[in-house]
Amino acid sequence: MSGNTFGNLFAVTNFGESHGPAIGCVIDGCPPGMALSEADIQGDLDRRRPGTSRHVTQRNEPDAVEILSGVYEGKTTGTPICLLIKNTDQRSKDYGNILDTFRPGHADYTYLHKYGLRDPRGGGRSSARLTAPMVAAGAVAKKWLFEKYGTTFRGCMAQIGEAMIPFESWEHVANNPFFAPVADVSNLENYMDALRKAGDSCGARIRVVASGVPVGLGEPLFDKLDADIAFAMMGINAVKGVEIGAGFASVTQRGTTHGDSLSPEGFMSNNAGGVLGGISTGQDLEVSIAIKPTSSIITPRQSIDTAGNPAEVVTKGRHDPCVGIRATPIAEAMLALVVMEHALRQRAQCGDVKVSTPDIMRSRG
Amino acid sequence: MSGNTFGNLFAVTNFGESHGPAIGCVIDGCPPGMALSEADIQGDLDRRRPGTSRHVTQRNEPDAVEILSGVYEGKTTGTPICLLIKNTDQRSKDYGNILDTFRPGHADYTYLHKYGLRDPRGGGRSSARLTAPMVAAGAVAKKWLFEKYGTTFRGCMAQIGEAMIPFESWEHVANNPFFAPVADVSNLENYMDALRKAGDSCGARIRVVASGVPVGLGEPLFDKLDADIAFAMMGINAVKGVEIGAGFASVTQRGTTHGDSLSPEGFMSNNAGGVLGGISTGQDLEVSIAIKPTSSIITPRQSIDTAGNPAEVVTKGRHDPCVGIRATPIAEAMLALVVMEHALRQRAQCGDVKVSTPDIMRSRG
Amino acid sequence: MSGNTFGNLFAVTNFGESHGPAIGCVIDGCPPGMALSEADIQGDLDRRRPGTSRHVTQRNEPDAVEILSGVYEGKTTGTPICLLIKNTDQRSKDYGNILDTFRPGHADYTYLHKYGLRDPRGGGRSSARLTAPMVAAGAVAKKWLFEKYGTTFRGCMAQIGEAMIPFESWEHVANNPFFAPVADVSNLENYMDALRKAGDSCGARIRVVASGVPVGLGEPLFDKLDADIAFAMMGINAVKGVEIGAGFASVTQRGTTHGDSLSPEGFMSNNAGGVLGGISTGQDLEVSIAIKPTSSIITPRQSIDTAGNPAEVVTKGRHDPCVGIRATPIAEAMLALVVMEHALRQRAQCGDVKVSTPDIMRSRG
Amino acid sequence: MSGNTFGNLFAVTNFGESHGPAIGCVIDGCPPGMALSEADIQGDLDRRRPGTSRHVTQRNEPDAVEILSGVYEGKTTGTPICLLIKNTDQRSKDYGNILDTFRPGHADYTYLHKYGLRDPRGGGRSSARLTAPMVAAGAVAKKWLFEKYGTTFRGCMAQIGEAMIPFESWEHVANNPFFAPVADVSNLENYMDALRKAGDSCGARIRVVASGVPVGLGEPLFDKLDADIAFAMMGINAVKGVEIGAGFASVTQRGTTHGDSLSPEGFMSNNAGGVLGGISTGQDLEVSIAIKPTSSIITPRQSIDTAGNPAEVVTKGRHDPCVGIRATPIAEAMLALVVMEHALRQRAQCGDVKVSTPDIMRSRG
Repeated sequence: MSGNTFGNLFAVTNFGESHGPAIGCVIDGCPPGMALSEADIQGDLDRRRPGTSRHVTQRNEPDAVEILSGVYEGKTTGTPICLLIKNTDQRSKDYGNILDTFRPGHADYTYLHKYGLRDPRGGGRSSARLTAPMVAAGAVAKKWLFEKYGTTFRGCMAQIGEAMIPFESWEHVANNPFFAPVADVSNLENYMDALRKAGDSCGARIRVVASGVPVGLGEPLFDKLDADIAFAMMGINAVKGVEIGAGFASVTQRGTTHGDSLSPEGFMSNNAGGVLGGISTGQDLEVSIAIKPTSSIITPRQSIDTAGNPAEVVTKGRHDPCVGIRATPIAEAMLALVVMEHALRQRAQCGDVKVSTPDIMRSRG
Repeated sequence: MSGNTFGNLFAVTNFGESHGPAIGCVIDGCPPGMALSEADIQGDLDRRRPGTSRHVTQRNEPDAVEILSGVYEGKTTGTPICLLIKNTDQRSKDYGNILDTFRPGHADYTYLHKYGLRDPRGGGRSSARLTAPMVAAGAVAKKWLFEKYGTTFRGCMAQIGEAMIPFESWEHVANNPFFAPVADVSNLENYMDALRKAGDSCGARIRVVASGVPVGLGEPLFDKLDADIAFAMMGINAVKGVEIGAGFASVTQRGTTHGDSLSPEGFMSNNAGGVLGGISTGQDLEVSIAIKPTSSIITPRQSIDTAGNPAEVVTKGRHDPCVGIRATPIAEAMLALVVMEHALRQRAQCGDVKVSTPDIMRSRG
Repeated sequence: MSGNTFGNLFAVTNFGESHGPAIGCVIDGCPPGMALSEADIQGDLDRRRPGTSRHVTQRNEPDAVEILSGVYEGKTTGTPICLLIKNTDQRSKDYGNILDTFRPGHADYTYLHKYGLRDPRGGGRSSARLTAPMVAAGAVAKKWLFEKYGTTFRGCMAQIGEAMIPFESWEHVANNPFFAPVADVSNLENYMDALRKAGDSCGARIRVVASGVPVGLGEPLFDKLDADIAFAMMGINAVKGVEIGAGFASVTQRGTTHGDSLSPEGFMSNNAGGVLGGISTGQDLEVSIAIKPTSSIITPRQSIDTAGNPAEVVTKGRHDPCVGIRATPIAEAMLALVVMEHALRQRAQCGDVKVSTPDIMRSRG
Repeated sequence: MSGNTFGNLFAVTNFGESHGPAIGCVIDGCPPGMALSEADIQGDLDRRRPGTSRHVTQRNEPDAVEILSGVYEGKTTGTPICLLIKNTDQRSKDYGNILDTFRPGHADYTYLHKYGLRDPRGGGRSSARLTAPMVAAGAVAKKWLFEKYGTTFRGCMAQIGEAMIPFESWEHVANNPFFAPVADVSNLENYMDALRKAGDSCGARIRVVASGVPVGLGEPLFDKLDADIAFAMMGINAVKGVEIGAGFASVTQRGTTHGDSLSPEGFMSNNAGGVLGGISTGQDLEVSIAIKPTSSIITPRQSIDTAGNPAEVVTKGRHDPCVGIRATPIAEAMLALVVMEHALRQRAQCGDVKVSTPDIMRSRG
């Protein structure tokens, strides 16, 4: 209700601030009997964590996860799983100069107006650091969905600033710091180096795909699968747009081309992005998101202070010049949480979940 | 939980099918003491209802709303408001030929796989007709928000198929069947006439704006105001994409241009679309949505029947060649429901709601 | 959230007022594919309806239920089931004299203070008439649970005022107007006749039992099965106390007697009332509730008017001298709704529901 | 949904097991700006903690609470407050002999049937130890309610086994290990000493009272204030019965005596227990609960093992012979959480909360 719990049947309650003692989450509703250890979670956290290349924030956080509850003798018990990640590298002094001004494009302004006070250390609760517990929770969901239905989740970078990134292969994604599905990322490296030198930041576009999704997931009117995906994606820090399947391209499509034809072997295209009428078709879920440029930049900006007087704002500290770069594992995790929630709902209402058959053609992958 | 209730504090539970005896909703959580009659609701329903021009479905429904509960002597009592809309024009015979085939791009396929059975009359529960009760509920929210905070909601058509529609003035919107903000819609009429003659359908892009939004609405982590907007919009039938503020254009923006600067008079642009860190800034909420082409078209399509055999599908009946045309009041209503919900949440947690001061510049309006 | 929806996975949203045009409910989450018609529901409504004997209110309401949605060709579709009951006999004039005074023991006082206004006709929303839609929803839950697991729900009167009613047999319950499990109810008839003549009202104690309950239903910490039962029962108008199993008698029990021993054939007693640690054991759920005397009586009472001045209050109109009499089917329905909700939750989290084996001994039945 | 979160607007998510590394909770929805430190919480935890007298379990736990998030510079920020309590004294070996048998009256049986596995160490998740985080959360709610409305919460022991405890004064409660409102507790000490010597356990009855409760709290139909109180109380480990106001005594009352008359100075009695029609009257909330005897006793009991064979069960380890003794602060905390939730709901729907005027007479205090 106050916005810190995601999901209902697989409910993840997130807590912590960027510079407090710890961040974490409590997962309520994980089915019992699944093998689970920290090692199952740490991998995705490592993909998201800062300090792994010169293109992301240099904050050095191991982001080591601890399981505090809900697992007994290596198996989930069906009771709440508390995951704790201690904060180890908080340099609050870097933020001293923004205590009483508002960064353009930042949540400083709205937090203060909403609550009447705010924690300025590293953005406090508005920090993208709070996505780490979601990546951890998503890893738990991914594991259950894979073991149960063979569902997998993959994401990649589709565009950094003006640089469009063609899709070559999923295999390249793990081999470069950009999650780019291409063999050669030298142009991206040059782009980012120039940007950083300019003291500026840029946006990005991420593509996320779930494969092996059961058919029949999603509620038809409001908790449509695609509506929940949009909710999950737009809830990631800095996201400004979400597309399912053909997305905005469907505006100029005709009904004769947009509607995915069927043959006895399955769907023949995937403009739907795996969702019809709010319910999964069993095809790949195809999601695309737009991420805005980081608001914390060292170039001076025109703003005001909390008294309403003009002020020039410069953000020091260690920031990502393109927050989109580390967003890929986050988007995967959020998509996994949505699918997990709806798989459990489907079990509740309809008693079982049907694993989909492979479709013969996937439009965009 | 099963997807037919929207909101928590201002909770709207929707029921009915396209060809059943009635559709409607129950609003739970409307504050007491507001004057309310059917006349306050009927106006928006009339804007959405079918049969008003040759460019929309010719189904003839008065969509007359009845208030069954929650109002006493012309005022809301704080108890559930049941709104009932009787179905009067159901010609089920038109749908006979699609009983056992799947229309490409339609929810036929997923409903059957989810539930094991479906109501084929007019799409049953998947019909866009079910947006009517939401328009009715949105009218109640709009009225309360306007009386309390002066908030207003407006929408207009931004694009039909390839036809981009420049923004001239809000005043034109009510004067043409397309909700287009332009004086001359002859090109749109020609476009739609040609499309209808071709037996095809097309997509659309809608823009929705809320003005006079209180500052501080939205929960920071998951129930972000923009995340809830994305959820609400993607939940409208046929929507495939959602943008807030600069949306996908922010991918190619720099931090120095995207972040909206502030002066003592307010924000100097609105790339944020009125939301920072998931919380309203007090600026206009700027939302853009992509609507896919109608799947029910008379051009034959390749598909399968429920036994998995190849089948050619032709949809007769009375359908909108561009469902986007009637979507404007729906999108306004859903936006109003989101703002209403968050206004009540803000009262709950922070005790009051602050009416925003006018901003000096609005980027896109 | 505003208190008019019961349950989450089997969510029943209730609407209407005693003297408005209609009352009803929307059931969201009913599994698809169950045969359902008005006849399946009307039976329980008839057991609850007024005017069936001289011992209950003489208001004459057929309480005929209509299914407005969610059923297609005689089967539930998995979409919302709207049940409507029209009000036909509203004599508002009877209430004229209580418009601006507070009946002792009545919700008049609290509604006015909560909402700032109230609907005085027949108690408006606070009327026990609003239990009718719950009885209807409960009938749907009962049917599903019986068909799926063989679960049954029975209730009977255990005490009317000072008159204790021994348990003879469930067979008698349907044969007298008191739901009393005894063959001879002449003493109860005399008791009620004298009470009515005295212009007074009395309390009652009801016992409700569910048999054939699956084992493993209930969440262990907060949504314990017994906690939800207590919530459901205390939510029935006029209920002031709830017991599970041994209830208040457990205060004076020893651990050696209270704890139900087990043998290979099952539990050997049922002090637990079918719940251990918040989870069903598979034994009978045993619930007992205390119902206060009706507050609307014709004997003059000392009170105040809305201006705070002393006033004598006499309630005319047609009231039950013992609201407990019609409460038996209501309590059964609420118990069925709780079990239904938890059966669906168990399917969601643990994947299946285990039908319990018969226990060898049932302590109180 | 899976039963580990209490409340919606003031939502407390509980995690941990009796013998895991830590237990705790996350409070989501605490209003911003309230001064809060560990010291505000520790007091109530100390009242509940074990090992404080020979009459309770000898497990030695400091139950020291740490605030991990949600407080900045000594004030709540409006974001989630994570409270952590480390487990320090876990002697799992004591439980070895109950690994594969079921204790009569214990959740062993139901956990295994529900989840297919269980954590036997100290009862795992079913341990009363999990009430500690609720006491901590309740302390936060108490503080806010007291500062905002002057509301206070008090509880006392009303009966231990057969020993009725007359109410003398609230002042005595803190001066004896039984929370008894009497000056001389020698008879209770003798009673408990004899019980312990007999290797048995006994039940108890607790009374909890909230004073200075705002008028108008509670939703009228399902989330009635008293229904939520019943839910909260029945959710406390070992509770088998709940009464509001006159409770079961109302069965034998007449309408002329039960209904609390009003004079210009206020209510003249409190049979209602502070709730009419599910909404607070502003009088004291009067709640009474029955607590069953501890199931873990050293006297041998007849049971079965997990293979279904007969087995004799003896529970060693350190257990409370009367779990009711430490239940008083728990019941106070749960009552505070209910009132807190409804105060926030009332702010949401009705915009403000009215502090009640003192009533001239309180029936039972």
